Parts: sequence; structure tokens; C-alpha cells
Amino acid sequence: MARINDNYLKLQAGYLFPEIGRRIGAFAQANPDVRIIKLGIGDVTEPLPAACVAAMHKAVDEMACRETFHGYGPEQGEGFLREAIVEHDFRARGCDIEADEVFVSDGSKCDTGNILDILGPGNVIAITDPVYPVYYDTNVMAGNIDQIRLLPIAAENGFTPALPREGERVDVIYLCYPNNPTGAVASRDTLTQWVAYAKNNDALILFDAAYESYITDPDIPHSIYEIPGACDVAIEFRSFSKNAGFTGTRCAYTVVPRGLTGTATPGSGAGERVELHGLWNRRQTTKFNGVSYIVQRGAEAAFSAEGQEQIAALVRFYLDNARIVLDTMADLGIEAHGGVNAPYVWLKVPKAGMDSWTLFDELLTRAHVAGTPGSGFGAAGEGYFRLSAFNSRENVQEAMARIHDAMSR
Amino acid sequence: MARINDNYLKLQAGYLFPEIGRRIGAFAQANPDVRIIKLGIGDVTEPLPAACVAAMHKAVDEMACRETFHGYGPEQGEGFLREAIVEHDFRARGCDIEADEVFVSDGSKCDTGNILDILGPGNVIAITDPVYPVYYDTNVMAGNIDQIRLLPIAAENGFTPALPREGERVDVIYLCYPNNPTGAVASRDTLTQWVAYAKNNDALILFDAAYESYITDPDIPHSIYEIPGACDVAIEFRSFSKNAGFTGTRCAYTVVPRGLTGTATPGSGAGERVELHGLWNRRQTTKFNGVSYIVQRGAEAAFSAEGQEQIAALVRFYLDNARIVLDTMADLGIEAHGGVNAPYVWLKVPKAGMDSWTLFDELLTRAHVAGTPGSGFGAAGEGYFRLSAFNSRENVQEAMARIHDAMSR
Repeated sequence: MARINDNYLKLQAGYLFPEIGRRIGAFAQANPDVRIIKLGIGDVTEPLPAACVAAMHKAVDEMACRETFHGYGPEQGEGFLREAIVEHDFRARGCDIEADEVFVSDGSKCDTGNILDILGPGNVIAITDPVYPVYYDTNVMAGNIDQIRLLPIAAENGFTPALPREGERVDVIYLCYPNNPTGAVASRDTLTQWVAYAKNNDALILFDAAYESYITDPDIPHSIYEIPGACDVAIEFRSFSKNAGFTGTRCAYTVVPRGLTGTATPGSGAGERVELHGLWNRRQTTKFNGVSYIVQRGAEAAFSAEGQEQIAALVRFYLDNARIVLDTMADLGIEAHGGVNAPYVWLKVPKAGMDSWTLFDELLTRAHVAGTPGSGFGAAGEGYFRLSAFNSRENVQEAMARIHDAMSR
Repeated sequence: MARINDNYLKLQAGYLFPEIGRRIGAFAQANPDVRIIKLGIGDVTEPLPAACVAAMHKAVDEMACRETFHGYGPEQGEGFLREAIVEHDFRARGCDIEADEVFVSDGSKCDTGNILDILGPGNVIAITDPVYPVYYDTNVMAGNIDQIRLLPIAAENGFTPALPREGERVDVIYLCYPNNPTGAVASRDTLTQWVAYAKNNDALILFDAAYESYITDPDIPHSIYEIPGACDVAIEFRSFSKNAGFTGTRCAYTVVPRGLTGTATPGSGAGERVELHGLWNRRQTTKFNGVSYIVQRGAEAAFSAEGQEQIAALVRFYLDNARIVLDTMADLGIEAHGGVNAPYVWLKVPKAGMDSWTLFDELLTRAHVAGTPGSGFGAAGEGYFRLSAFNSRENVQEAMARIHDAMSR
């Protein structure tokens, strides 16, 4: 008989966003004349940069002609894109990353989940609470449920977790900065402490920098590799989704530095230390076939001079939306975090004792605005609520006017 | 300390195709004036169908405009594509598959590897020998190395494996027909026997039909779901790579019928039988973010009337190449299989005692033609050699003339 992976049965019933979709759908069906404004899921709304559009048209034309057709490309990504990535995202910031340490993929969600393929059982896994649910769920799927340690983040610690205490050692640490869902950033000092912790405890940092382009404060690192020694302890995930607007176009990448190692079980064959680069390369060449050539050409164009200008304008646009949200919350006297170096505003549920799903339902039914309840990101997110800056200016203004009206009544 | 997945250390040093690439590269470097013709890796060479090209241009334009922009799509694939798939690939052949049983992905290689995520440890895994190496390697990665049972396929059994004998029960069976690497097909009777075996032994069939469009014999099933009862025992993998030429464009899909179940460990929480559809849906929504909208529009166009005509012409073109290979082998008196319902010709190494890597090196150095040594597909592939029909007419003719010349000397 074919046995299933029992770990899946330990997952909670629904991933957060399908549940939000269900509630919105039910309300919309009962109220067909109402126009709901969605500030829930972190999905971009503005068109792709013109530079990317032009590059993809050109790539489609290449695919239409025998002489310029592209079949299978390297699973790790096309050389032109890996080179552009290291040049613009790393060398320009003083990080010593080589093109062959960059693995292009179709999404950071995929990579943050799939990275567990190359890690063994028995690791103690640290994730923040609240957290992007994928880190938690993929560890449950991998059989790590009993080894997950939740590190609370809240206004009191600047939404950055305290280092594990003596005797509470962890082996793998997920850090996401600028943070989803709280919109917080990690300072150079904070990241330096975590790199030191990882070095001293032989731990691995999984650093998700999907929102780095939203950093406006010049003192905040964009990459963990800006911290000396991070190459020895950290894998970094990056995406074209939230800067170039590739959520429906699909391109991301993961950096696995050479020299970064994990521990093999003694006697398993290859010595005690094994390079993660080789393992990830083997995983990707065996279980992945590269990103569409057309999409990789689009991603490359994001690094052109005009592409960079167009992306900067997109980021400014969403950050201006976030400013409108923050101003509205200030006007309502609601405590709000984030929104300055990140496209998310993390607000405190303003009524004592109200839970975050109740606020969700209240904003949906009274203001016809959909956000994301904080408890969807973990128990410590209860009492908070996420509003995303991803929408048109008109919709954000309208949504804030409605919320202002509903919350003032 | 971060522990690695020790199972990776049990993998053989290199995946087949990188090793082939290495040998070709070394020869090319030593002989820069030689033009090597590659009939090794199964990669298409002809441009994309015009219908797909036009659809992708249109989709790129949609992404350039706020009103028609697409962000995150459903992880399972766009409705328009899932509908087109069931209509053309299943209902037209009498198979009762629903759109929500189809999961669109970026590749069958990914899906055949990732499917192990939802299966538990302890399954006895049957794969043929020779076999597409990904089935073997992904099972090693998943910790199944000691539970792999090799089912030999050879000319004597029509390259279809005998059913496991009494007392040698298997839980999961990989079947790939038309077969890579042998080019053989599975008759309706053969598939009926396997479906009955799976039913009687509560086993799961993983059916890889990536090459179904090459079937010319009207009696050969294109889908395992043409066999009554297969919906209860089989998952099917399909791809746009080898028909529409999407190897560099990336689109595939996997069918997981509702009602197909696996067994949970008693006491694990959800009753003994669990639907695989729900598990795969959870896997894909958590660890995948859907295929590029642009690419899905291209794939949809493959089902248009003109797209179907253009694909048929592509398939005919490669099958005519295969005919040229078969005729050359016949002329040389070399035993050859496949090439009629598949784009691969599987020939017997013509010299007694010569191994298949030696023939590889001989053809490379004497004829400047690269094929694939049979032993790269498993021990039982030793003594065989794969030639692919994927190349231009001119290159196939030239390659066959060179081989004819080299082998006649």
C-alpha cells in the first residue's frame, strides 16, 4: 500500500490566504453591489516596467526563430542573469558573491520551502512569531514540527527576535527583513549579532530579503552579506516579485555561498562537513529545470538603467501608498508600525479585547476593505492587523477614507 | 549545528547529462575546428509554434497595462488552461478528468521529483531499468534507496516490465510510456495489467506521458486514464516540452484524480485513507506559486486549432528524423528499437563486449556525434545507446552519414 507523508496531517486546515479569499468571496456573493478593496494579500497591482516588457517581447521573438531558439537552459539560471544579479545586488554593495553562487528560480516561496530538501532531520528550527506562514508549514511537512522554536517579535523588541538563551541552542534560523508581516527592518547591529550567534553555534541563517528594495534608510543593510562573515553562515533569498512586479511573471533567486557547510552524520560517507552549494546544485539540477528563458530576459532588463529607474518609481509609488495608510492610522490614533522601509503597515487592533479576525470581518463588512488578520501569521500576531500598500493610489485613498469613516463612527 | 540530508551523499557523483556535457566540452576544446552534432540530450531544436508565440506577445502586452495586468495567479494553474487541458487531452479521448484535478507546473521533472513530498517513508518503489534517472535520484534523496526495486526492461519483454511476483509486492510504480530512453510503448493490455496490479495491491502508479504526442499507432493509449479504473490508482505527468517545444519556455501539468487515496499511519489523525489530491494541492499552494501567466497563455494557444496543427507538424518533423536514424541503423545491420511512436532510437552496441560509454567516446571522436550511453540510464541499459531525433533535418542527415561512414570502416 502506498503510504502518505503523515506530517501533512499535522498542518492546520487552511493556508491563511485561501481562508481570506473564502471570507471575501462569501461577503461579495451576499453583497454583489459592493466594491471590496483588497489590501490583504501582498500582491502588486502596477504594470511591469517597460524595460522588462520590451525584453520579453524580444525574447518571445527569439523563440520564434530556429537560429535564436532556446531549449533547456542551465537549471541554475542563464549566465547573463546571474552576472547581472551579482553586479547590481551584491558587488555594488560591497558583497563578495560570485555568479555561480546564485541559483535563479521561479519563486522565493518555492526556494524557502525546497531548501529543507537538503537539510536533515533533527535540526532545531527557529522562526519568528508572527511569521510568513510558509516557513512554518514547510517545516511541518518536513517532519520538524516538534523542533520548531518560536521567537516572539513585537514592538518591545523592535520586531527583531532576541538571541536564543544559553542552553536553548537552535540549528536553523529564518530571518525576513524588511519583515513580512510587520514591516520592521533589521539594523546592521542586529544582523551582526545573528551572524555571530550562527558562527558560535554552527547554525544556519535562512535570510529572506524579498522586500529589500523598499529600504529607504541608508543605514539598513539590503543583504545579509553586507555583514562580515555572513557568507559562512547564511543563505539569502531574493525575488523580482515585489520590486519589478513579477508576482505573476515568476522569477527569484537564492544565494548559496561556496564554503557554507552543514554537518553530515558521522560515518555517512563524505566527511563531517559538506558544502551546501553542492547539495543545492544537485537538488536543483535533479528536481528543477530552470526558469523560462523569456522571463529570465525580463528579469535581466530589470537591471538596465531604465529598468532600475522604473523599479525605483514603482517602489516609491507603493511607499507613498504606505504613507497614506500611516497618516490615516495616526489621524485615527491607531498604533501602527512599518510602512517606511517596507510595503506593509502593521497596526494594533484598536479595540481592547477584539481579536484580529473580528477586525478583519468588521473592516470587510463596514468599510468593504480586506486586510490580513495578525493571528494568521502566528499566535503572537493576535491583536495586530496587516494592511498592504499594494494597490492603486485611488483604491488606497478610498480604502483609507472608508476605514476612517467606519472607525470614527 | 545544521545537519544536512545525508541521503544526498548516497547519490552517484554526477547526473548523466552533466557528464555527457563534460566529455563533449573536453573534446571540443581539444578539437576546436570540429563541428559536433548532438543527438544526446532530449532537447527540441525547432522554434515555438506561431500560435504560442502570438499568444505570449499578447500576454506580455497585458502585463504592460494596469487594466490587464496579472499578479499572483492560482498556484494550481489558470482556469483557462486547466479547462483547455481536460477538453483536449482527456475528454476528447473519453477520460473523465475534471479541470480541478489538473495542476499546472513549470516542469514534469519538478513534479516527478516533488511528488515524493506527499508520500511517506517505507514505500517499496518500483522503477524500470533502464530508466529516466530523475526517478531513481529523487528516491535516493528522499531516503528510499533501500526500498527501490529495479524492474528490468529489454527487447525480450517489449521494454515493458513483468508484474512483481507473488511476495515481492511494491507500493509505488513509475511507468513512462512512450518510454524514455527505449522509445517503446505500452499497449492497452500492458497498462490494464498494471492498473489491475495496483488495484489488487493497493499500489500507486506514477505515469509519465511526456512523449504521448509521438504515438502514431492508433491502438496505443495516450493517457493511463484510458484504462478503466486508472483514476483510482494513478497520477499522470504531462508536459508541453516535447510537443510544443517548451523545454526552454517551461510548462507541464500533473493530474491527481479525486478519490485516489494513500494510506496514513494508524493513529496519525485523519483516518486510514487520505486523498492525494488534497495533499498535492496543499504541497503546491505552500511550496509553489504557479507558472508565469505569459507562459500559461502560450500553453493555452497550443490547444487552438492552428496550435494543434503546428504541433502535429513539429512531431511529424522529429519522427521523420527518427525514421532517418532507423533507416541508417538498418543499413548498418545494427539492432534498433523505438523511433516510431517516440523521438528516441535505442540501439544495441554493435560490437560484442564494447560498453556504452566506449561507444559514446568512439562516436564522439570518430563521427563527432554525441549520443547517450545506455548505462547512464541504469545497469540494464549497458550494451545499449540512445540517439535522439531532436535536431534539424540537416544535422540528423549529416550525423547519420558520419556514423555510417565511421561504423562501416
